[in-house]
This record gives sequence, structure tokens and C-alpha cells, in this order.
Amino acid sequence: MTDSSLKNDVFLRALLREPVPYTPIWMMRQAGRYLPEYRETRAQAGSFLALAQNPELACEVTLQPLRRFPLDAAILFSDILTIPHAMGLGLDFVAGEGPQFASPLRSEEAVAALAVPDMALLQYVFDAVSVIRRELDGQVPLIGFAGSPWTLACYMVEGQGTQDYRQIKSMLYRRPDLLHRILDINARATIQYLNEQVRAGAQALMIFDSWGGVLAHHHFQAFSLDYTGRVVSGLMREHEGRRIPVIVFTKGGMPWLEAIAACGADAIGLDWTTSLSEARRRTGDRVALQGNLDPMALFGDEASIRREARHVLDDFGAPQGGGHVFNLGHGISRFTPPEAVEILVDEVHSHSRRASA
Amino acid sequence: MTDSSLKNDVFLRALLREPVPYTPIWMMRQAGRYLPEYRETRAQAGSFLALAQNPELACEVTLQPLRRFPLDAAILFSDILTIPHAMGLGLDFVAGEGPQFASPLRSEEAVAALAVPDMALLQYVFDAVSVIRRELDGQVPLIGFAGSPWTLACYMVEGQGTQDYRQIKSMLYRRPDLLHRILDINARATIQYLNEQVRAGAQALMIFDSWGGVLAHHHFQAFSLDYTGRVVSGLMREHEGRRIPVIVFTKGGMPWLEAIAACGADAIGLDWTTSLSEARRRTGDRVALQGNLDPMALFGDEASIRREARHVLDDFGAPQGGGHVFNLGHGISRFTPPEAVEILVDEVHSHSRRASA
Repeated sequence: MTDSSLKNDVFLRALLREPVPYTPIWMMRQAGRYLPEYRETRAQAGSFLALAQNPELACEVTLQPLRRFPLDAAILFSDILTIPHAMGLGLDFVAGEGPQFASPLRSEEAVAALAVPDMALLQYVFDAVSVIRRELDGQVPLIGFAGSPWTLACYMVEGQGTQDYRQIKSMLYRRPDLLHRILDINARATIQYLNEQVRAGAQALMIFDSWGGVLAHHHFQAFSLDYTGRVVSGLMREHEGRRIPVIVFTKGGMPWLEAIAACGADAIGLDWTTSLSEARRRTGDRVALQGNLDPMALFGDEASIRREARHVLDDFGAPQGGGHVFNLGHGISRFTPPEAVEILVDEVHSHSRRASA
Repeated sequence: MTDSSLKNDVFLRALLREPVPYTPIWMMRQAGRYLPEYRETRAQAGSFLALAQNPELACEVTLQPLRRFPLDAAILFSDILTIPHAMGLGLDFVAGEGPQFASPLRSEEAVAALAVPDMALLQYVFDAVSVIRRELDGQVPLIGFAGSPWTLACYMVEGQGTQDYRQIKSMLYRRPDLLHRILDINARATIQYLNEQVRAGAQALMIFDSWGGVLAHHHFQAFSLDYTGRVVSGLMREHEGRRIPVIVFTKGGMPWLEAIAACGADAIGLDWTTSLSEARRRTGDRVALQGNLDPMALFGDEASIRREARHVLDDFGAPQGGGHVFNLGHGISRFTPPEAVEILVDEVHSHSRRASA
């Protein structure tokens, strides 16, 4: 089921709940600003967007963390907002302010004009996947990714990051029909986008529902999970004779864990507020779990980093049967000392090997 | 058990799970910037802090929402950061940036120098409680409040609002002894502070653990709930022959609901990501529940505001036996149209009266 040409397929095996010799680890945003070499390449590219749009440089930053740390997976360097950018919303990354859209969706006309973009506009992403896959040369599997339809819609309607989600929730409460149209288009675009990533060489897929957790309890299913589930069911799950595992990560998704686990994904990402043992119980071990160290634990001293890592591992339990991929509960902070990551990876590998012995 | 001199004690009865004719409602931050008359009084005071420190003006803004809407409780106009301000940390409210401390706790020396402040420094708060209680003249009960020891510590160590809680979590992971010292002092100060509010006339108490939900699953008990529980057990629970109910609100507290419900409080506040029926089941109806409309639902049209309000009420179930206080799941947004609140209060009262009939 897994790929014999891969030198390290522990990550894929863990996702498929097959036996593993240790718990694999990768980190959300592992190719990022906490690495001096990343900051150098980004300066060379001129901007975040120029970096993401240059397949060679995107490949370079994707590989940087793997040169430092024995991580068990690579993840495409890109951004979830490439799709709305291709839809013509005009993405820009403003220094210190994060992503902004020049033309957020605020009118019935703007929503009516929205359409699934031509995937040719996203060729730079698929090219980056191909280049990275080639350069990885089977060292570890490559993860492709996209945002969930709801999370994309948050950015598309708000136009930027938000504390209160007032614009999109005003639309949800006043004009749910407009929001459903956006979500439908996002879902269809995301299916095409992720399947193209698989064709270009992605060996696993991750869907980031970063803002699903801000919805009222009774709205999560209709406005977030239903569309994530539609994406999952539209994905190619086999390619080149291999299973392509899909991970769904909903930050703050704890209230809906059972439902998320039933959406068709192979694995569920968890943030640090959830206990892995409780999540195993609630999901009945029907999916693999990915997570869930508090990213701020990397600001501890060596002893506490090792202790917190062991806590996560032990909370899940022995790794032999697979089913656990170690990760942070959210993206790594730009202020993280790289040495902390070295300690973390070492502890995850060595402690889980001991637990498997 | 409840106060016969109170013209409306439905709120207190609901908290004590006694029979009520309808579901009472109040709103977190109901005395606030969404009201033009509040903005006028605040301008008159000159600053947020000047307003909070002037008992007459604090009374005026406390009463403003009650003149507009038939709310079932008043809440002291103040801020949770009065305690650290009295500790000498130098509170300031910077326009558009929220609260900031001139001297955040960043060194072992600063933590060693911290002490429970003289309550005389907080006399303006107790004076405000007395004035409000007198002016309310039994119309509705008056709620006093404080921040949880953990939530206060977040502000005291970060020095301001934060997205990642990096400073306080660095302390948690590196020097938990320092953090425990801060939490211990905060807990002791908060007990004195809330008991003084009761002596001055507060008829119910609320503890805001606004940031408890950012802790890793296995740290919540030790760094947040244990100290909240210590505060609860140190409170006067009877005054002038009446029971003083205590409400604990942990934003994002869903993962620890059972433990929070066992902390000794009469009621638990819930944000909008939790289902009230599920919360009832998980807490075994041992506490009253307060919440939990998405504050953004007030940006809907009239039909959707009424529908969302009914959803919350029906999710809890029939109100006759008490146990439910309607509230938002977080503070009301400054952008909320006051007319939306009028619709909400009307729907909560009329729908729950019908359900009780």
C-alpha cells in the first residue's frame, strides 16, 4: 500500500494506521520565518507571494527544514489563499498585517461574478509540487494542501484577518444563500486544485479549516464541515498505485470531533486544547490523529520541551499500530528558536522508539 | 432564599435552579460602546479608566442599557484589570489598542515584589457598587465581577492583549514557580476584591476566565481552574440572608466542562461553540448554564435574530425549572445596532414565556 521507492514512509503508514517503528513528526509552517535561511530566501524573492509563485524558490524553502531536522514529511510551501487570488480577489501580503484582498466579496454582484478559476492560473503551485517531489528524491513524502471552503470564505468576505468575523457572519445570518454560493464554488475549486497537486506529485493532502472553530455549534456542519466533506469525497484517493491519505485540521474543532472524524478523511488534526486519549475514545480509533503540542511549548527549556513532547506521545499511547502523527497544534511561531525544534524531533523519535521496543 | 425587596429576581432564581416564569437575559458588556449614550458619558469622563474610577459615572453607564431594554440583571461597570492596576502595574487604555500595562511582570524581581494590593486602592469600585445598588432600587439584581487569576496573569505578564500568549507561556514552561506565585497572589486578591463587592451590595458574582481556553489540555487544571476554584471557595456565599450565586465563564472552556462544573460555582458561562443540551448532559444538571448566543447573530435581520435566540432557548429546553440564564457567548460587539438587542430581549422573554405556559 505504501511506496517502496520512498526511503521513509513512516508518516504515510501512521496516517493509514499501519505498523510503524516510531511516531513520525512534521510541523505546520515548518518552512517558515523561524529559520534564518528562510528569511534570506524570502528577502531574495522580494515578497511572500513572489516566493510562493517561484517553484524553484518554493522548493528551496520547502527543503530547508529537512536539511536541519530529520522530519518525516515535507509540506509544499504555498498559501491557502492562492485559490481566491486566482479568482481575481487581488491578494497582497502587507508587512506586519498578514494577507489582504483588494476586492473582498461584499455585494451580491461580487458573489454572483465569482467562479471556479482556471487551474492554469495556479500552474505555479503544481510546478512547485513537481520540482519539490523531484528534489526530495524519495527522502520523505510530500504533503499538498488547501484551505477549507469556509476558511477561504472567511478571508474572501472579510478581506483580511479578523478578530470577530463580523462581515462573514453578517452574511451567514442575513444572506446564507450568498455564503452557500461562495462555499460551493470554493469546494469545487479546491477539489480540482488538490487533485492537480496529486497529479503533480503530492503524496498526502491536508485541508486546513483554520476558522471552523469560530462558528456557532449548530452552524458548523452546514457552513464548514459539509463543504470540507464534499472536498474530501471529490479527491483522488489513489495515485500511481498508492493511497493518498487526507488529513482534515479544524482549529478549535473539539466540539464537533465525532462529526469531523466521519467526514471521510484518513486523519484528523487536533489543536493543543484536546486530549489525544479522549479524541481516540471519541473517534473510536476510526481515523488517525495528528497533533498536538502547544506551539508555545517550544519556548520552554530543554527539559520542559522533552517533557511536553512525551506527554503528547504518552497521551496517545504506544505508536506501534500507527495512527499518530506528531505535530504542533497550530503553526510554529516565527520566534521559535530552531534549537528547540531539534530537541523536539529528537525526543519524539527517541521516546516513541523506546515505547515501541 | 431570594430577595423579596427585589422587583425582579428571575435572574437569581434561574441561577439557583428555582422555578422561573421565563428565561432571564443580560449581556456581557451590556454597558458599552454600542450605545450612543455610553459613548457620550465616556467622552465626558475623558477616558475608560476615568469612567471606571468615577462611581457616579460608572453608575450612569451601568444603568443605561436597563433604561432601553427590560434586561434581568445589571452588571457593575468596571474592568477586570483594576486589581493589577492596584498592584502598581500601571494600567492604561490606549485608543484602538486596548489595555496596556506600563510595567508587565517579566523578571524574577518583579514577580517577587508582587503583593496583594490594599483594597483601599479599589475603594472606587466598591463605591460604584454601592451607588449602583442604591440607584437600581431593587429593579434587578446587581452582578459584581473579577477576572480569573490566570486571565489576570495573562495581561500582567504579556502587558497587553496577545495573539499567541508567548510571554506567559514561556514563563509557564520555563519558570512555573514564578507563574504559580502570581496566580496565588491573584487568587488571594480576587477573593478580597469580590467579597468587598458583596459587602458593598453585589447580589451575584461572575469570574471571567477569558483566556483559560488557550492552555494546553493538561495545563488547564493546574494553571487556571485550580485558582478559579480557590477563589470560588473563598467567597462569601450568603449576605444579608441571601445566597450570592457565582458564575464562572471560561471562553473556549468546552474541553474541561465537567471539571469547571465541579469547581464550586452555581453556574457556568458557555461560549457559542458549545451546545447547551450537550453541556446539560455533560454537567448532569448540577449547575445552571449561562449563554450562549453568537454575539455576531445580532448582525442578522430581525427574523434571523429571533430564530437564533429561539435555537439557544430550545437547545437548553423548557425554562420552568430554572437553570438557564440567556446571554451572549462573549461580550457584545461595539458595532451592534441597539435595535438588534431590543429584538433579542423581546424574543427571549416572549418565547420562553410561551414555552413555560
